[in-house]
This record gives sequence, C-alpha cells and structure tokens, in this order.
Amino acid sequence: MDRLIEAIAAKENPSVIGLDPRPELIPEQLLMDEGQSQPSPVLYAAQLASAYYSFNKAIIDAVVDLVPAVKPQIAMYEALGPLGMDVYVLTCRYAQEQGLQVIGDIKRGDIGSTAAAYAKHLTGSNVVRGQEPLSGDELDNCAWGPGLWYEDAITVNPYLGSDGIRPFAQAAEEGDKDIFVLVRTSNAGELQELELAQGGRAFEAVGDMVEDWGSESIGEHGYSRVGAVVGATHPSEGAALRARMPHSFFLVPGYGAQGGKAADVAGMFDAQGSGAIVNSSRGVIGAWRQDPNYQEDMGHEETLDLVGRNARRAAMAMRDDLRAALRA
Amino acid sequence: MDRLIEAIAAKENPSVIGLDPRPELIPEQLLMDEGQSQPSPVLYAAQLASAYYSFNKAIIDAVVDLVPAVKPQIAMYEALGPLGMDVYVLTCRYAQEQGLQVIGDIKRGDIGSTAAAYAKHLTGSNVVRGQEPLSGDELDNCAWGPGLWYEDAITVNPYLGSDGIRPFAQAAEEGDKDIFVLVRTSNAGELQELELAQGGRAFEAVGDMVEDWGSESIGEHGYSRVGAVVGATHPSEGAALRARMPHSFFLVPGYGAQGGKAADVAGMFDAQGSGAIVNSSRGVIGAWRQDPNYQEDMGHEETLDLVGRNARRAAMAMRDDLRAALRA
Repeated sequence: MDRLIEAIAAKENPSVIGLDPRPELIPEQLLMDEGQSQPSPVLYAAQLASAYYSFNKAIIDAVVDLVPAVKPQIAMYEALGPLGMDVYVLTCRYAQEQGLQVIGDIKRGDIGSTAAAYAKHLTGSNVVRGQEPLSGDELDNCAWGPGLWYEDAITVNPYLGSDGIRPFAQAAEEGDKDIFVLVRTSNAGELQELELAQGGRAFEAVGDMVEDWGSESIGEHGYSRVGAVVGATHPSEGAALRARMPHSFFLVPGYGAQGGKAADVAGMFDAQGSGAIVNSSRGVIGAWRQDPNYQEDMGHEETLDLVGRNARRAAMAMRDDLRAALRA
Repeated sequence: MDRLIEAIAAKENPSVIGLDPRPELIPEQLLMDEGQSQPSPVLYAAQLASAYYSFNKAIIDAVVDLVPAVKPQIAMYEALGPLGMDVYVLTCRYAQEQGLQVIGDIKRGDIGSTAAAYAKHLTGSNVVRGQEPLSGDELDNCAWGPGLWYEDAITVNPYLGSDGIRPFAQAAEEGDKDIFVLVRTSNAGELQELELAQGGRAFEAVGDMVEDWGSESIGEHGYSRVGAVVGATHPSEGAALRARMPHSFFLVPGYGAQGGKAADVAGMFDAQGSGAIVNSSRGVIGAWRQDPNYQEDMGHEETLDLVGRNARRAAMAMRDDLRAALRA
C-alpha cells in the first residue's frame, strides 16, 4: 500500500474519484456528432462507450494535480459488453499515464486457479509466455501495449474464503500492487450483519481474516497489501473496524451523493490522518449537471471543459472538506 | 429455470461442460501457425485467445447433441485482458447458435445501480437507447450483433445481500433468464462455515435468502429463476440444502477432476431426478491429454478432431455415470 499512501501524502488529499459513467451523467451532445442538433433515434453501445472515454479523459485531466487516484467501476463499462471493457482499459491506461494510481473496482472472487486467473488483473501481460519483446516490430503485435488491465489495485469479494483471497494477495505481492477486500459495504445488510455464535457479526470476522491475509505484506508505512472496503454510511462500525484492523488500509465509498459526510469518515483514519482513502463518484463526475452555464447547443470541446471545471471544483471541495475533518 | 430444465430433459442429461480453457489445456500446435515446427519464443495473449476460440468450438461441436448446456468461466478469458473478453463472448454466441444453454460463470456482485449494470449480462443490447433497428445497414453498426453477452444464466455472489441480488433477479425476470447465487462452494471455508448465533451456518442462511429471492419467479417445473451454486465436494450438506431449498435449482461444480463423484451429487437432485445440473470442466475439455494417439506433429484440424473426440467420450461417460447414479 506504500505507493498509494505516498501518492496521498504528496497531494495531501486522501480522496479518490470514482469513474463510474452512466448514460444519464453524459451530456447529450457527446452522444451526437459535432454539429448534429437532434439526438439520433438509436444510440449504440459503441457510441456510448466512446463518449465515456472522452468524458473520463476530461475528468482525469481536470483533477490530475489534485487527487492521488481514480477508481473506475468496471460494471459501468461491462454493461456495454466487450467493447465497454476496451474503454475500461483505455481509461485505466490513460489515468496511469497521467501519473494517477488506478484502483479497479472489479469485486472479483473465485477459488484457486480461477482466482489466479482473475488476479492477472494485477500481474498479467500481453506476452503470456517467453521474454518480453524489445523491438518495436514485436511490440506492435500487442494491440494494447505490454500491460493487460493497467490497474494498481483491485477490489475483491471474500465469500470464497482464504482459498479465494490468497491467489490475489500473492499476485499483489508479485506485481507490487494492492487489493481491497469487501468487508462492510454501504446498504448491504443480511449476510454481513449475521450474528455469530463466537460473538460479533460476520463482517467483523471478515475484518479479522483481512488482517490475517495481509500479515505477511506489511509495508514501510505500517499497512499491508490487503486493504478493506468499508462504507462511509457506517461511521461507528468503521471507527471500530479501524481499531480492530490496524494494518488494513481502508477504501471508503459512499461519501457525497450516497450520503456520507467528512465527519462520518474521520473515524476510519488513524491517529496520523492516514489509513483510508475516500471515494466520491457522482458528486464529482456529475457536478456539471448543477452548472447553470451548461447549454445543450455547446460544442464537444466546450462541454468537456465545463464537465472538467465542475469536476475540479467538486474534487477541491471534497479535499478541503476531508482536510478540515481530519484537522478537527 | 424452465428452459434449462427442458433442455436437460430433452437430452436426458443433467450435466454441463465447463469451457475453462487454460494454456496447459491447449495442444501446443494450436499456438503455432499451421506447419510451424517449433514454438515461437514469445506467445502473445491474442494468439492464446484465438486458440481458445478454436478449441472451444471443437468441443461445442463434439458435445452439442449430448449436453444441454455449457458453462464458460469468464476468469480464464479475463486473464487475457479485454481481447480475452471478446473471445468469451464469441464462445457464448457460438454455443447459443448451436442451440446450447449458456451459463456464464461470472460470479459478479455489487449493489443497487452497479448490480443493475452487471445485470446487463442478462438484458443488455448493443442498442442502448431507442428502437432496435431493423434494416441491415443499421445492424451493421453493431459490431457484435444485437446481443451483448449471449448468456442464458449467470452466477452471482451474495456478499452484498438483497440490495445486491435483487437487481440481478429482476433482470432475470425481464430477460427470461436465470441466476445462480453462490451458496456452498468447493474448497471455500471460513466465511461460509461461520456458526451463527441463530443456529446453523452462514451458507445455510444464504440458502434461505436464495429461496426468498426466488419466491416470486417460480416456473412451471417448480423451480425459481434464482438457483444456487452448491459444490459436489460437500455431499451431505448438498443433500440437506436440497431439502431446505425446494424451489432452488442447483448448479453443482466439482465433479470429476475436482474429486466429486456421481454418488456424491445424487443427493442434490429431487425425487424426480431433477433439481440440479452438474458441471465438469477439465475432465472433459482436457481429456485429450490422456489420448495415446495425440502427436505433436498433427495439423490443426486433426488436433481439434482429437480434442473433440475425447471430449465427447468423456461427456458421454459423465452422462452415463449420472444417469446410473440417479437410477440407483
């Protein structure tokens, strides 16, 4: 987790922007050809995917000096089929090229060799056997460059237990990357809240497992390569988990549009103000929708500028909000 | 679940072939150009993905009259990056075109609108807004045809609770498709086995949730659209779950190479010999590796024939094994 922690420290900003595009967050003109005045009666997945990429790049460009990381939600791309996955990867690659950490919110999980296959998100290469080619000609054979998914960390699901998580933890070690295990998510009750015969609830038992899975990969800053997803909408549980899981870095979704406030997440940080990174998606990438300057007849470039300016303003407000809560 | 149950009845065969290609299951010559005598020093993901597709088609062609369904494991394709996903979809589409049911083993899970995005696996279309175009010209704009993922059912993960599962169940209803929720998986301990204060273990509580999630979609044959994944390596637990979950159809992995035998899975069927479908992957698709007739200098076509013949023999043996166990 060292690289992420250092990136947060460099920007003095423990926040991450969720790149979760949806049709309703995309300005209508980005779905039309430049100069077209009426929406086409039919919108293809390929058109939407292409608009997602322009939209994401505008947001990345606007926040790159402010935030340490972005978190693309793969489901939004997967909803467009395999070509949506292409745009997911292009987005990750573009963000990495700009120097951002990329947390792939992929929530994968399986056992043994199948988990190891998913873990190629962290260690995979377009060269699956033999030596990495050095010449330009051979590199040209890799449609996507040498990388596969361009993620620095991914989220994973613990339902399949140790046999499911260890292959991811091992890939994280090999690839100098990180994973975040779902522990306590926003608005997800039943299973996580089951009361256990041994005392405590199921998510607390998962929290203990996370500490254990990470015990061999603790980095320079005291946190392991196995972090935890802990939703902002459970402030007191989050603070209790912080105490219970001293070596597990937290990824905290649910700030902003989902209802979590800076005061709610303050308890998920450690005494030094480290130990967590807070995600906001819609509140940042959809901020343009509250801008009275938006007009439906703006051109593509002007629209992307407006999207970027609003995202930057929202990202700055979130950063200042978190800084103030952590000083308090 | 009606379509799957009817496909099983038509073939008198409650088994499904797992299409989980891995590098070591692919005959070496399929990774070379026809006539090439030595493996190239570098193997690209694109070459492997292309070999996976030829391999899968050979197997599908060989078993299409024997089995009702195939179950591609998306992790194996995702391990090759976005172009692996293309081959996953091509495989699903090819299997559907041959008349097989396709169970996408994707184990996705998230909450609310994100789960709904993943659920586009079941309801998505390359036309995301407006009317489905009818003319050939407009259809040509859909690189993949009108469908997105070409799956009849998918597996999903329950860690995010009702808010995570209901969007999938709803999409299944809309798209006349099915889901299988992970309940009790092979070799996956801790979390599923946690003893609960209310009595019983966590996976049993999930089983009860599955019955509940499916209660509004029970079909003509008595099973709902919300099935359960129950591993073959837990025979007595599987039989107990069968009694506990009378409206939940079971997808049973772990037969064959993973150690489960027909006698182990018999208890997961109902009194009519319905209620479950058993998966075998490596035992069928890797059966060619035991064939003494395999030679490294065979051409592509001859090799694919041999792969298909062995898969067919293994699929037939599995069918007969299951039939015998269900008659016993």
